[in-house]
Amino acid sequence: MQIKYFVLMADSKPVFSLDGDPMAAEALLRDVFGIVVDEVIRKGTSASEKVCEWKEPEELKQLLDLELRSQGEASEQILARCREVIRYSVKTCHPHFFNQLFSGLDPHALAGRIVTESLNTSQYTYEIAPVFVLMEEEVLKKLRALVGWSSGDGVFCPGGSISNMYAVNLARYQRYPDCKQRGLRALPPLALFTSKECHYSIKKGAAFLGLGTDSVRVVKTDERGKMIPEDLERLISLAEAEGAVPFLVSATSGTTVLGAFDPLEAIADVCQRHGLWLHVDAAWGGSVLLSQTHRHLLDGIQRADSVAWNPHKLLTAGLQCSALLLRDTSNLLKRCHGSQASYLFQQDKFYDVALDTGDKVVQCGRRVDCLKLWLMWKAQGGQGLERRVNQAFALAWYLVEELKKREGFELVMEPEFVNVCFWFVPPSLRGKKESPDYGERLSKVAPVLKERMVKEGSMMIGYQPHGTRGNFFRMVVANPALTRADMDFLLDELERLGQDL
Amino acid sequence: MQIKYFVLMADSKPVFSLDGDPMAAEALLRDVFGIVVDEVIRKGTSASEKVCEWKEPEELKQLLDLELRSQGEASEQILARCREVIRYSVKTCHPHFFNQLFSGLDPHALAGRIVTESLNTSQYTYEIAPVFVLMEEEVLKKLRALVGWSSGDGVFCPGGSISNMYAVNLARYQRYPDCKQRGLRALPPLALFTSKECHYSIKKGAAFLGLGTDSVRVVKTDERGKMIPEDLERLISLAEAEGAVPFLVSATSGTTVLGAFDPLEAIADVCQRHGLWLHVDAAWGGSVLLSQTHRHLLDGIQRADSVAWNPHKLLTAGLQCSALLLRDTSNLLKRCHGSQASYLFQQDKFYDVALDTGDKVVQCGRRVDCLKLWLMWKAQGGQGLERRVNQAFALAWYLVEELKKREGFELVMEPEFVNVCFWFVPPSLRGKKESPDYGERLSKVAPVLKERMVKEGSMMIGYQPHGTRGNFFRMVVANPALTRADMDFLLDELERLGQDL
Repeated sequence: MQIKYFVLMADSKPVFSLDGDPMAAEALLRDVFGIVVDEVIRKGTSASEKVCEWKEPEELKQLLDLELRSQGEASEQILARCREVIRYSVKTCHPHFFNQLFSGLDPHALAGRIVTESLNTSQYTYEIAPVFVLMEEEVLKKLRALVGWSSGDGVFCPGGSISNMYAVNLARYQRYPDCKQRGLRALPPLALFTSKECHYSIKKGAAFLGLGTDSVRVVKTDERGKMIPEDLERLISLAEAEGAVPFLVSATSGTTVLGAFDPLEAIADVCQRHGLWLHVDAAWGGSVLLSQTHRHLLDGIQRADSVAWNPHKLLTAGLQCSALLLRDTSNLLKRCHGSQASYLFQQDKFYDVALDTGDKVVQCGRRVDCLKLWLMWKAQGGQGLERRVNQAFALAWYLVEELKKREGFELVMEPEFVNVCFWFVPPSLRGKKESPDYGERLSKVAPVLKERMVKEGSMMIGYQPHGTRGNFFRMVVANPALTRADMDFLLDELERLGQDL
Repeated sequence: MQIKYFVLMADSKPVFSLDGDPMAAEALLRDVFGIVVDEVIRKGTSASEKVCEWKEPEELKQLLDLELRSQGEASEQILARCREVIRYSVKTCHPHFFNQLFSGLDPHALAGRIVTESLNTSQYTYEIAPVFVLMEEEVLKKLRALVGWSSGDGVFCPGGSISNMYAVNLARYQRYPDCKQRGLRALPPLALFTSKECHYSIKKGAAFLGLGTDSVRVVKTDERGKMIPEDLERLISLAEAEGAVPFLVSATSGTTVLGAFDPLEAIADVCQRHGLWLHVDAAWGGSVLLSQTHRHLLDGIQRADSVAWNPHKLLTAGLQCSALLLRDTSNLLKRCHGSQASYLFQQDKFYDVALDTGDKVVQCGRRVDCLKLWLMWKAQGGQGLERRVNQAFALAWYLVEELKKREGFELVMEPEFVNVCFWFVPPSLRGKKESPDYGERLSKVAPVLKERMVKEGSMMIGYQPHGTRGNFFRMVVANPALTRADMDFLLDELERLGQDL
């Protein structure tokens, strides 16, 4: 009886959206694309429009009518919803969005993302992702070549935090392959090392991987935010004396706040001496490798065992594009992560199953993250991308020079990358540095200015406290569309917003 | 000197792609979108076109010219590349793509993905993702309501494997909060339980999380592939007798191959008795909760502590859309994963910082995965989505009935979900079941047919061995555009491809 009921049901028309009308589906998508062009690509990138249309959460909830109901809505309504979603979203492509380590909009990368979304496949087998399996390998090979490796392995991960976790997991597996089966309780206590300026994902990763945050030994940095190799040495000895087994150092190339580059050669020497895995978290700074002028900042990176590099940051590839690169040629990734699921990685396929790269990862389905970068690279060429990196440095230095000319701006330090950290000192605090509450009062300036700029929608720039320093702004020059005029705007706007403080 | 050089460089025009010409950028994107409409949305979904254009890897490498060079390429060349990428990619939206647990193309979901990609933001703070922070919460609330919870927590993860890992990590943290800081070595040996039909991500996750695959105790299943609660009881006692601490059971709602649903009520009883965290991996079967007719398959799911559910599978939301849902209301996610990075989660913001959900996850940047599902839901309504689920069941049952009418098809078992597992028995093997090499010869049929269908591009369907059974096909009815004609095609095509075997 039940079966009969089902079969009768199957007589009905396919329930393809828009009632199975392919013309309507096409029309909807064309309309949505038109909205994207008008509202994001054109208005979103225009300096004369707002970066964001601030609404209080409760008001925004009302405006968006987020509730999901039983009844569907007509196309007109859906288009209106797309417009509203865009209207109240932050325009990260806007020339005055300086808030994160990503910004801007590369049309080729976006084109790659649209093609990726339309093809909607998973990166695990040659069978269903032939183009992308080969393309990922080619893109990773190119990134490895820039690191300085003529061979190796790698994979795109869902973000730098997970790339960093992979490195830690691979390092412990290489030293203790038993770990995969028997777990950490079968191992001695482990210790890994990173600087106090490292990204927070190192500690998060240590917790997630079962090592615990205590296993992360925090190395001191110099006044520029660079790891001090001598302190690394000291902590390694200390860990050993405590009965822990050091196994990995995570150096940072381009720290999150200060943009500092750890001294990789000296750190590699330490790692070599102690037989430690050297991971370089170059999620932010890796793209500097494209610049002949500036790649010296990463000198020594070729001595690493693994590198995390996010082209979605300085190269504008789009979230997310995070490569984990490995010097290993022994199939470590697959040995460490593989489980040989027989329904997916059949061994009796009619092609070389080494092309089924899905068992290299701890995910099953994995998004295609290579096409956007590949297409942008094809369009720009390595030279075009190098020009962008050089331009970002040049604009950062221009900003520094301009900032020094103005009263009321104080650099936290001379930058060596495109993070420009500075205080805006409002009129009422100028010349009051010796006042006992100066630091406290200065620290309250950035949050106020941030609120003002967001509520006006004129600009977005991040701030944070840092060590003993109170809140300061971290300007990030990453959007390749930026010009000197945008740097001038930043300074003018802060002066305007803060003139009454 | 160096600074002067930089400043001079900054005089040059912005290096926005396409030489800073916004009109050219728009034109490129319009052209690419036109290609997507023609080649994917129109041809890719047409039954009269090929599912795939098979090429051997070496030939495909040549055709694609993958190498990344110093010189950039002109727009015409880039457009040609987009056409080639699409041409040689598998059309997962094709009505004869039955190969994975995802397929089809929902225009509203794709619209949501295009808007998402154009806005290119990260889901971590209300500051830069106001719409999506609120929207994610609303979508998760709706999914939780379908599970049967009026409160709780959750987050979208990059795939079901990572959702499952989260559940395991949360369960151990809840029991042993010390684990985050001190790691697994500070804990007694732990044991988790799942069935032999579970997804391979459970073991992968156990290895990654440092527990080791040995910590996963594999519970027997019945002939339908469902976990046997009595065997779960037995293994829990065994683990305890061995000195391990049971802490989690991962039940599966919709197993990967057979589409089996574990008996959640009975398993929940066991968990309750022993005080164990009940996780339900409903990555595949979760969408059945939308159907009043079929949701009884998941009876008891409301007793779970956590649920993984991937709307990118049966609901066609697009890769990836994977929700981890929690019954917890004690902020467990944030306590377990949080690290309070001061540069991102400033506490002196001008809005309620509880809206900064980024510290719930182990990622830093996190893609926006809610919009595609939200927009599709708004368009279809819960009713439209329910019709789809019912239609998929109905078509699966239609296929079963038709298959039984034909010589040469043998069901592995009656399905209870939309996975239809069967052998195609070619003419030369019919009536030879008693022959000693029957099983071995039958097992070689599916790989041959798979090669033939892929090389012709007529269809794609997965196969695998399973336990003591040789290779059989696993038909997945997921694409909402499917009709009875597509089911008939599947059977006709296998007969045609296998007539000489």
